[in-house]
Amino acid sequence: MSTDRLPEADVFARECPSRPVLQSITGRWGVLVLAALVDDTRRFSELRRRVDGVSERMLSQTLQTLERDGLIHRAVLGTIPPHVEYSLTDLGRRITAPLLTLIDVVEESMPEIAAAQNEYDRGH
Amino acid sequence: MSTDRLPEADVFARECPSRPVLQSITGRWGVLVLAALVDDTRRFSELRRRVDGVSERMLSQTLQTLERDGLIHRAVLGTIPPHVEYSLTDLGRRITAPLLTLIDVVEESMPEIAAAQNEYDRGH
Repeated sequence: MSTDRLPEADVFARECPSRPVLQSITGRWGVLVLAALVDDTRRFSELRRRVDGVSERMLSQTLQTLERDGLIHRAVLGTIPPHVEYSLTDLGRRITAPLLTLIDVVEESMPEIAAAQNEYDRGH
Repeated sequence: MSTDRLPEADVFARECPSRPVLQSITGRWGVLVLAALVDDTRRFSELRRRVDGVSERMLSQTLQTLERDGLIHRAVLGTIPPHVEYSLTDLGRRITAPLLTLIDVVEESMPEIAAAQNEYDRGH
């Protein structure tokens, strides 16, 4: 299938292929893995330390999906033992930019969000 | 607990309360529900049509979490029968802005992403 004949993407449509892509980016670990790569190339073990709490299995799966979507580049270095390094592609960088803004807004808004949660919990 | 004494939020830290907030925003339905409210107040049934594929149960849960976090306002109208309307709060609007950018970038990038997926699948 020629990719320049794709119909216009719409994440609101159940069958649109953009929806699983959006979900792998915004899934449980996708946001954090992409954001962890914004400053620098990182090895698997570095990513695992940075994304506190992710299991090896979940990190592998997340990296594989993001690599398949073209957001992450995986490089195997010819060292002994071989090392694997992950970095953002140009596309990955374009997609990560709004995620960093989102993280900033959420982190800055935590006092306001915690206050909303307290108020909600008092009323329910 | 006084909310202005919260330590600085860090989504990379496993125990930081900002992490579940980020995850409810970016969860399977959070992004789409927030984005669906950006233009207008909507009733439950309108949201359910717009966010194609969401179940009643998942939509209820998503709205409840986003309301608790202070991102969505729920108004019960005194009509007969009573109607419930959902809208973004100011905080919800600040958080939804980068999500709209993300959706735009993903939708625009779908030809590039589909090409990357095809290439990956040929090599694996």
